[in-house]
Amino acid sequence: MEKGGMPVGDEESKDEIEIKENMAAWLLGVKNLQIQPYNLPPPGPHDVKIRVKAVGICGSDVHHFKNMRCANFVVKKPMVIGHECAGIIEEVGSQVKTLAVGDRVALEPGVSCRDCNLCKDGLYNLCKEMKFFGSPPTNGSLANQVVHPANLCFKLPQNVSLEEGAMCEPLSVGVHACRRANIGPDTKILIMGAGPIGLVTMLAARAFGSPKIVITDVDAQRLSFAKNLGAEEIIQVSTNIQVRPIIQDASEEVEKIHTAMGADIDVTFDCVGFSKTMCTALNATRAGGKVCLVGLGQSEMTIPLTPAAAREIDIIGIFRYRNTWPLCIELLRTGKLDVKPLITHRFSFNQEDVEEAFETSARGGTAIKVMFNL
Amino acid sequence: MEKGGMPVGDEESKDEIEIKENMAAWLLGVKNLQIQPYNLPPPGPHDVKIRVKAVGICGSDVHHFKNMRCANFVVKKPMVIGHECAGIIEEVGSQVKTLAVGDRVALEPGVSCRDCNLCKDGLYNLCKEMKFFGSPPTNGSLANQVVHPANLCFKLPQNVSLEEGAMCEPLSVGVHACRRANIGPDTKILIMGAGPIGLVTMLAARAFGSPKIVITDVDAQRLSFAKNLGAEEIIQVSTNIQVRPIIQDASEEVEKIHTAMGADIDVTFDCVGFSKTMCTALNATRAGGKVCLVGLGQSEMTIPLTPAAAREIDIIGIFRYRNTWPLCIELLRTGKLDVKPLITHRFSFNQEDVEEAFETSARGGTAIKVMFNL
Amino acid sequence: MEKGGMPVGDEESKDEIEIKENMAAWLLGVKNLQIQPYNLPPPGPHDVKIRVKAVGICGSDVHHFKNMRCANFVVKKPMVIGHECAGIIEEVGSQVKTLAVGDRVALEPGVSCRDCNLCKDGLYNLCKEMKFFGSPPTNGSLANQVVHPANLCFKLPQNVSLEEGAMCEPLSVGVHACRRANIGPDTKILIMGAGPIGLVTMLAARAFGSPKIVITDVDAQRLSFAKNLGAEEIIQVSTNIQVRPIIQDASEEVEKIHTAMGADIDVTFDCVGFSKTMCTALNATRAGGKVCLVGLGQSEMTIPLTPAAAREIDIIGIFRYRNTWPLCIELLRTGKLDVKPLITHRFSFNQEDVEEAFETSARGGTAIKVMFNL
Amino acid sequence: MEKGGMPVGDEESKDEIEIKENMAAWLLGVKNLQIQPYNLPPPGPHDVKIRVKAVGICGSDVHHFKNMRCANFVVKKPMVIGHECAGIIEEVGSQVKTLAVGDRVALEPGVSCRDCNLCKDGLYNLCKEMKFFGSPPTNGSLANQVVHPANLCFKLPQNVSLEEGAMCEPLSVGVHACRRANIGPDTKILIMGAGPIGLVTMLAARAFGSPKIVITDVDAQRLSFAKNLGAEEIIQVSTNIQVRPIIQDASEEVEKIHTAMGADIDVTFDCVGFSKTMCTALNATRAGGKVCLVGLGQSEMTIPLTPAAAREIDIIGIFRYRNTWPLCIELLRTGKLDVKPLITHRFSFNQEDVEEAFETSARGGTAIKVMFNL
Repeated sequence: MEKGGMPVGDEESKDEIEIKENMAAWLLGVKNLQIQPYNLPPPGPHDVKIRVKAVGICGSDVHHFKNMRCANFVVKKPMVIGHECAGIIEEVGSQVKTLAVGDRVALEPGVSCRDCNLCKDGLYNLCKEMKFFGSPPTNGSLANQVVHPANLCFKLPQNVSLEEGAMCEPLSVGVHACRRANIGPDTKILIMGAGPIGLVTMLAARAFGSPKIVITDVDAQRLSFAKNLGAEEIIQVSTNIQVRPIIQDASEEVEKIHTAMGADIDVTFDCVGFSKTMCTALNATRAGGKVCLVGLGQSEMTIPLTPAAAREIDIIGIFRYRNTWPLCIELLRTGKLDVKPLITHRFSFNQEDVEEAFETSARGGTAIKVMFNL
Repeated sequence: MEKGGMPVGDEESKDEIEIKENMAAWLLGVKNLQIQPYNLPPPGPHDVKIRVKAVGICGSDVHHFKNMRCANFVVKKPMVIGHECAGIIEEVGSQVKTLAVGDRVALEPGVSCRDCNLCKDGLYNLCKEMKFFGSPPTNGSLANQVVHPANLCFKLPQNVSLEEGAMCEPLSVGVHACRRANIGPDTKILIMGAGPIGLVTMLAARAFGSPKIVITDVDAQRLSFAKNLGAEEIIQVSTNIQVRPIIQDASEEVEKIHTAMGADIDVTFDCVGFSKTMCTALNATRAGGKVCLVGLGQSEMTIPLTPAAAREIDIIGIFRYRNTWPLCIELLRTGKLDVKPLITHRFSFNQEDVEEAFETSARGGTAIKVMFNL
Repeated sequence: MEKGGMPVGDEESKDEIEIKENMAAWLLGVKNLQIQPYNLPPPGPHDVKIRVKAVGICGSDVHHFKNMRCANFVVKKPMVIGHECAGIIEEVGSQVKTLAVGDRVALEPGVSCRDCNLCKDGLYNLCKEMKFFGSPPTNGSLANQVVHPANLCFKLPQNVSLEEGAMCEPLSVGVHACRRANIGPDTKILIMGAGPIGLVTMLAARAFGSPKIVITDVDAQRLSFAKNLGAEEIIQVSTNIQVRPIIQDASEEVEKIHTAMGADIDVTFDCVGFSKTMCTALNATRAGGKVCLVGLGQSEMTIPLTPAAAREIDIIGIFRYRNTWPLCIELLRTGKLDVKPLITHRFSFNQEDVEEAFETSARGGTAIKVMFNL
Repeated sequence: MEKGGMPVGDEESKDEIEIKENMAAWLLGVKNLQIQPYNLPPPGPHDVKIRVKAVGICGSDVHHFKNMRCANFVVKKPMVIGHECAGIIEEVGSQVKTLAVGDRVALEPGVSCRDCNLCKDGLYNLCKEMKFFGSPPTNGSLANQVVHPANLCFKLPQNVSLEEGAMCEPLSVGVHACRRANIGPDTKILIMGAGPIGLVTMLAARAFGSPKIVITDVDAQRLSFAKNLGAEEIIQVSTNIQVRPIIQDASEEVEKIHTAMGADIDVTFDCVGFSKTMCTALNATRAGGKVCLVGLGQSEMTIPLTPAAAREIDIIGIFRYRNTWPLCIELLRTGKLDVKPLITHRFSFNQEDVEEAFETSARGGTAIKVMFNL
């Protein structure tokens, strides 16, 4: 495993150090992150205050870092970045009964309204009033401390580390995708893209019982990583940039994929999200199957939608996750899946390292998951 | 109601006339239909022979008539056209127990293999070995007589006419779409396209309990027809030809649609199938809703797929139908829906009229369903 | 329609009368209801105060009245009774944005914790921390005023009366049952029991598109009522008291039911809940169908479970409802169903009438729904 | 592993021996099995003839052997017994394209009508016209040769033995139960009964991703077997004979089970099927969970149905299976599960051994699966 700019010691070794002032990584402009004080409100009756110990960098954080936006979310004023995190409870609100000071917890980053029809129906990830760590204008969690609702903090068992706790966030995307696509022991799967999301989807799909997974990417290193992580078959494909005519281009790729699978593809997860990948996905999947769009590369796509729909291939979108932390923690606790190999780089939380950490994540390649240890 | 080239008498008045030789409408070339003899094999033990009495013209028949192809199905040798039909049993195979000579029946036109995984699982409409009336190279049903498996012939109650029996075929598309989209009394619906398929989908959605349906089309006459048939709101939209930038174009239309509905749109049926309609559909539907692609206008579409998927809008395709005839017949029998108003033109089955009937259907406009009485 | 002990005037005629002190119907012992002062807390920031205008009596209220218990819920100290209600907003909490003073609202009576896994998953009716109007130890709503969370108060359209608003509660049981049993236009239904719950289930099933409903009861008057309300077929059955051997007894009843339906029964709603009714239900329903247990007559039943399970008949239980008010109100607004005929008796809210109202409800027979106008 | 009455050699060692006359095990009366000639019809165009090599004994076979009946199926005339089997293709019908002479195949034993609504809908296991090996009056498969439809014969990969092929039948019951109960990585499971069906259900549930399984039985040996096969927790319970009051009896057992699970029980499989086991199942399972009735011990049960239904616990029945062979074979091929340990006794196919084999199976205890090698 490669290392970032710090010697990696025991991730929890600094527990005893008292924090004088809460500091956070503020995104002030393009590629401009400054570690500055962050005043927190006191926890409400149902909130807890957490000393943050591990924060991972997500592709959306990198988008914010590089472009001051991600999809329709635009950073208009200084914002604390980050949302994949875990830490230790330092203070509990007056009504909190399920958590205590000292508990190690993973944080689900989105706070929904709980009043709208979608929230009441359990589809809270689609709530229009969602306040989500590090998604403008809501401050994130790359900070020494954050305040968060207790019911979004999930206690970690002894054998699950705080880094693994932070990994529950990306893993949740994979778990939610597998639930939405109804993965089971007779679901043969194609995954497009061997980046962090492709890989957590693969790990999740395995835990859901999938018997065979073929994974594609343009990057041979990432494919090799995927192979080591358990993919049955890997296929290197040409660049994702769309070259016309996409349909012919797809057919050759589809043939390779079908040969590698040696069976019908029941579900494809497109963890890239370009016209080209969706075109391949729609052509490769069997009649009556599902294509699950997880990656968000291009907003507008040109795809062979009608032929796919006429084979009754359902296209299913994924937006974050809902009710996934308990399962993620259980999967980690029982060893049904292991996210530790995905953490390829670690950085400490200080001004010298913070931008380099984001640059490392942005470069991709061998950097799968970049993690801060606070 | 407009009439075609024949005086409409009792549709079943010629029962007593003996048929000397079986004649069928053979598609020989572009816009070239010839009524010529059609030799049938004797019915197998599980088959019946039907004297065909009513045949409707479908959009796919018109495609074959005009282009010698429809989607990937190409007419390479003379083929009997037609697939929406009903008639009277003339002969039953040795093992047929559920039907008798003289029974009036509606015909489900597709014969699946019954051996593949999809057939065994009840998804027989997706069977790769499907033999379907009038879909090349399988001969169709615009003929005096056809032979068909008994289990695809559904007995009509006394109060359901043979023309209504033939209408079970297009109605089945609407029923299947409503089942796939899980329509019920709290599903508010947008239908794009007020042609035959849009209208049967509207009728079916009503029978499934939908409380409010908004329908759009470019043609004011068709919208007026839809309004009379029960649409709560109609909206005339600009041409379906895609004009860039489609997203802006969509936003204005979407606003009109939202105003007309006065509530969230749970399900949209795109019965047109162009980039522009799908763009509107994806933008108009609420988070967590469904867009059901029923019409097959363009093969390749340019659409805002990622934003829609990120709102977890599922895109669901429709290919024909499965297990719909019993429900269609029951809906007609009980008067829960009425397809008779859709039959706008009638023709008799002879060489002079046959091409004109197809031309009438092809012109669209006030011609919703063109029906042959044989 | 029979009347209770008051002349029925305009149900909203007393709006202008100022309420001096909040009075409520306290259940102090078996058949002992006293109208006494009820001090309310001030509404919290997300609460509203409602002047109650209409309260219906439910079978569970009658159980409390007669036995000081219902199932496992035991009345151990004085408790305000009642939970089917509607009224007018008198005061709104500081954070309430969706309601205003003067709004007419129907009240969903159960307040769930919103923190447990079931709540987060949208299955809040199963929340173990539920606080439910008039279910011990939580005070109910037969009072001049109550305080309730704003997000459980649903605004009524102009054409839906406050009495109809109160009827949303029993109707919700029927709607939830239909959703759980997935009722649609091809679901043929048997309902056992023509009491209030059987009747609202019938009305709901009709709105969900069911084409044919057979209903059974031991009481000819109730069956006649059901027939007038729209049941296709009614069947009078012998007493619900279990007489051995139940299987033979069932077979005769089942035969009558099958003859009345003239088709397979897809779903049976047992709105009675005795061994005998469940025995009939399990025998009458087709293989692959569902039996939905809505009524709660006997706790322990002796039933032919294995043969039913071996025909893969799923037994589905119903506990109250979830997310039903918006649909109920929409169904009432659009006239898709009419609950007004169910209100057979009306009483005013005073000490002389209150016990008589409960006695009237307890007697059953021609009393379907007994309603207080406050 | 214990052995039956034969030295076990290579199970396929007698391939080259020519069969002179087809012999079968005919059930002539209670505990009276005679190996006598069995004349087969020639295979139809879609059939194959199989030389049977492995036949397992099922509980239903034992019922027939001991009582000349099983549930409602009564043996009224001599019948060939047996239905769990695999063999080698000896002859193929004229229309068979997917199989060839010499192919090793597992046989799905039930031939459905393929014409009724249930068959068309994919629910063929519920077909009323089902003809099923060894279920009266249909002859079974404990014979040197049988004729069977090709589409119910599934080719075995090289690394799956014929005995494992025969085990696909009982395994299918477990797979079907897991599908019906929607088992996945967050389903914690209680299995009641550690006999053959309980054990295959456990193996299947594991393959579907279940993280924790508690299994109960009255027999300590069987529990020990289950523990070795992978159950996390085993609990010995008192006899299945119902002792009143069952509710109190259940509560103690339920407490033990809850302690062993240390979490909510999402799904219970009752593989015994007595009042007592169902009572425990209904009380042990969490609100919103499922109880799946797999075993068929008692026809009529006395159970606390209403309280369970009021917690919205669905009761789901299992009848055989549908479309399970491909998944079973894949699970065996990839080693996701191993059925070989379940085969505890083997017998050869001759008059001396045949009744002893059934007696061995009937004694239960250490005999899990008794297998004939032909």
